[in-house]
Amino acid sequence: MSKLEEFKEFQAKISRYSQAIALMHWDLETNAPNNAFEYRSKALGELMEALFRMSVSDQMGEFLDYFSKKENYDELSEIDQSMVRVNKKDFDKFKKLPPQLVRKLAETTSKAGYFWKKAREEDNFALFEPYLQEVASLEKEQAEALGYEKNRYDALLDLFEPGMKTETVKGTINYLKEHLLLFLKELLEKGKEPRYDFFEGDFDVNKQKELSLEALKFMKFDFDSGRMDMSAHPFTTKIGPKDVRITTRYNNKDLRYSLFSTMHEGGHALYELHIPEEFFETPLDEGASMAVHESQSRFWENIIGRGPHFWVFFSKKLKDIFPSFEGISNDELYKGVNIVKKDFIRTEADEVTYNFHIMLRFEIEEALINDRIKVDELPTVWNDKMKEYLGIVPTNDAVGVLQDVHWSNGQFGYFPSYMLGNLYSAQLFSKLKKDLKDYPSQIEKGDSTEVLNWMVENVHNYGKMYEPEELLKKVTGETLNPKYFVDYIKEKFSAIYGL
Amino acid sequence: MSKLEEFKEFQAKISRYSQAIALMHWDLETNAPNNAFEYRSKALGELMEALFRMSVSDQMGEFLDYFSKKENYDELSEIDQSMVRVNKKDFDKFKKLPPQLVRKLAETTSKAGYFWKKAREEDNFALFEPYLQEVASLEKEQAEALGYEKNRYDALLDLFEPGMKTETVKGTINYLKEHLLLFLKELLEKGKEPRYDFFEGDFDVNKQKELSLEALKFMKFDFDSGRMDMSAHPFTTKIGPKDVRITTRYNNKDLRYSLFSTMHEGGHALYELHIPEEFFETPLDEGASMAVHESQSRFWENIIGRGPHFWVFFSKKLKDIFPSFEGISNDELYKGVNIVKKDFIRTEADEVTYNFHIMLRFEIEEALINDRIKVDELPTVWNDKMKEYLGIVPTNDAVGVLQDVHWSNGQFGYFPSYMLGNLYSAQLFSKLKKDLKDYPSQIEKGDSTEVLNWMVENVHNYGKMYEPEELLKKVTGETLNPKYFVDYIKEKFSAIYGL
Repeated sequence: MSKLEEFKEFQAKISRYSQAIALMHWDLETNAPNNAFEYRSKALGELMEALFRMSVSDQMGEFLDYFSKKENYDELSEIDQSMVRVNKKDFDKFKKLPPQLVRKLAETTSKAGYFWKKAREEDNFALFEPYLQEVASLEKEQAEALGYEKNRYDALLDLFEPGMKTETVKGTINYLKEHLLLFLKELLEKGKEPRYDFFEGDFDVNKQKELSLEALKFMKFDFDSGRMDMSAHPFTTKIGPKDVRITTRYNNKDLRYSLFSTMHEGGHALYELHIPEEFFETPLDEGASMAVHESQSRFWENIIGRGPHFWVFFSKKLKDIFPSFEGISNDELYKGVNIVKKDFIRTEADEVTYNFHIMLRFEIEEALINDRIKVDELPTVWNDKMKEYLGIVPTNDAVGVLQDVHWSNGQFGYFPSYMLGNLYSAQLFSKLKKDLKDYPSQIEKGDSTEVLNWMVENVHNYGKMYEPEELLKKVTGETLNPKYFVDYIKEKFSAIYGL
Repeated sequence: MSKLEEFKEFQAKISRYSQAIALMHWDLETNAPNNAFEYRSKALGELMEALFRMSVSDQMGEFLDYFSKKENYDELSEIDQSMVRVNKKDFDKFKKLPPQLVRKLAETTSKAGYFWKKAREEDNFALFEPYLQEVASLEKEQAEALGYEKNRYDALLDLFEPGMKTETVKGTINYLKEHLLLFLKELLEKGKEPRYDFFEGDFDVNKQKELSLEALKFMKFDFDSGRMDMSAHPFTTKIGPKDVRITTRYNNKDLRYSLFSTMHEGGHALYELHIPEEFFETPLDEGASMAVHESQSRFWENIIGRGPHFWVFFSKKLKDIFPSFEGISNDELYKGVNIVKKDFIRTEADEVTYNFHIMLRFEIEEALINDRIKVDELPTVWNDKMKEYLGIVPTNDAVGVLQDVHWSNGQFGYFPSYMLGNLYSAQLFSKLKKDLKDYPSQIEKGDSTEVLNWMVENVHNYGKMYEPEELLKKVTGETLNPKYFVDYIKEKFSAIYGL
């Protein structure tokens, strides 16, 4: 075996451990009997520790030293060079984390997750507070260990969105506020809300599943390399190469919920499923970042699924499965899936209000990590910001500061990905429209081939080779530009609301 | 941590790797998309290698040396002493296997499995022959590496049935032949075959599932610690403590198939589910042997499920779900699930003919391992023996020598477990009847509590603490005695067939 083959075999070994771990997690969320949790957690901890040890091992260090040397690096293919770069960045990062901190974080977030659930159920923030306190303090420690130039939050942000800076997020938020706060006000005050009563009622879950499968078929989801199940919270997992699974959730009172959850997760899945075989079992075999991933899910969910052309095609499928929609026009269906509402819950927010939910979370966690606010102030700060951005105040903490799982998990720095994903999707879409002038008529015929191929060629094909900014520039010719999103929103919703 | 705690932590680590492996296998048989197979196999190979390395590691050797020393061993509890003994036996055994042989066997059986499937589909033994040749020769090598006193086959038999000898199996077979061959002849010639037409027809799969779940409920299967799925071949897997899963298969033309498969696998599951918590994540957390396991599955499938008392209770459940059974008496139902037929397929054989299927397999594999017959003679020998024992000749090799997966897997030495399991179950049952005089009326009321508790207290509670012979003697006061089985069969079937 050559040194490169040996290195790849070592990476494959690491990948195989993550495949087992991914399956163990997926199974817990979908199939595992209730009592399995305790020992499954121990088994997961065991394999995760083994995985972490290999990732930061001396053996890994030696491989990376060798292949980072100019004379060896220059010999590598472009893909292998990326692979070394990505691997080295992770190695250097995780090497900085003291093992005790890693263990402490795992233990604390496990406890915090339990108390978060309880606190949310009982609408009692005080129950969660001491654990969140602990998590936040460990997150600060982690940020210090990882290091940063300007802002402690940068260290955490980089874990989810490589290369992204707090300053850029702040600038982007200001731009969005400036252009969308007023637009939202105008829309709700002067616009005409479309009908959507036909989407509410009593919808058989098996038929909803059929409809979801039709949407996945349209997206060319390959059921030989994946599957769809049900879980409390929809998610996508790559179990391994050629095995990407999504879950969805059914709300029998509102048909839209499962359909768009499915298209969202389907978008994540398409990304993972089209990463080239050459990348399998290497660190490049995943999406470029959380936000680029989100750009794919939001593209299929919102830009395509909540777009006008899709409903020209899909309304027939809908009516075949649910005859109650007979007599509703394509245009009415299209508008009915695009209702804008000021509401408390992020995951159910429309395209216009969604980013405001993210902004407040980002502003709170950035201030918390930089010690400008304290954990016990969170409920008040949260409600104040909801009032400021959306003009409403949560009726209780369960639908306010306690609604998301992320902080209990220690995922400080994750939220901006959701907003950035929306912006990336609009920026990519603007380029796609220029490249595929004929795309509307193809989608209207139910043919997603060219649209999907464009995404594969421009995004999926690169896996994790490039950092998000590089990738965006490569595809669209420029770095993040929130104007595309603002233009997209204004044009789409002005028309729907008749402004 | 004390030395003992350290040892247990090391065993727990090994157990956690097997838990991951068990889940990965189960998932392949039940959920995994088609294309997952290739990379899943690699991931499985990776974890299995890691598991094997730990099992025969120097670290394991040191622990075992330490705790096997008289002064340390004597300090241990009875359970911990068993744990050391069982672990040491496995360690010594697997240490003897050259790593190249282990790898070669894994590779060869993987190929052989593929060609066995193909050969069976195409009814072409010649396709499978060269691979079976290779497997058989590696199995002989393995037997030589493991060592034996009298018969090379002993080394393989011991892998599945610790302590069992070829000589004992032969003696048992002679006893069964002597007492049952003639009985079978008489039964079929002079007996009156009961009606069973009502069990054949067209039975909705969802309703069959409902019926299977009713049977599991009767057995007190705990759905918080397990689940039931569908797979091509029914099986039971312990994913980990408090997570034991069974699968079943539906034949829409014959209701009996899924019901008794479910009760069979349910019996395996009950055994694993009732091993005490103290044994979790140690080598004692499994059944005593393959045959003792089979005694549990056959007990619930045949002795209870195909017994008269169960049908006093269960016929109402059956009629609630399938009203077509209205008017059929309990006795008719009981008899209809006990039809004796000379047929080619082992897995579908009745209680009287089943062991003859095993005898011929045992006789063939024992002769093969000892070089008394050759692989290319198998189809002829198979058919000759079928003619000798059951008086019928398979119409082709697909329903003859190619019907079972075991040889392609390298599981030489496994088949006797099925027969021994039947004998153990009858021997245990004979003791149970003495201890629980009232058991018929309890089962007739649908109450399995005391029967289950008896099995838990006498068998399940010990996990793998004792070798099969020790266990049997502890419970029934004697070692293997095939008379119990012969008496049980003669009594039951003489009555059913009116001899």
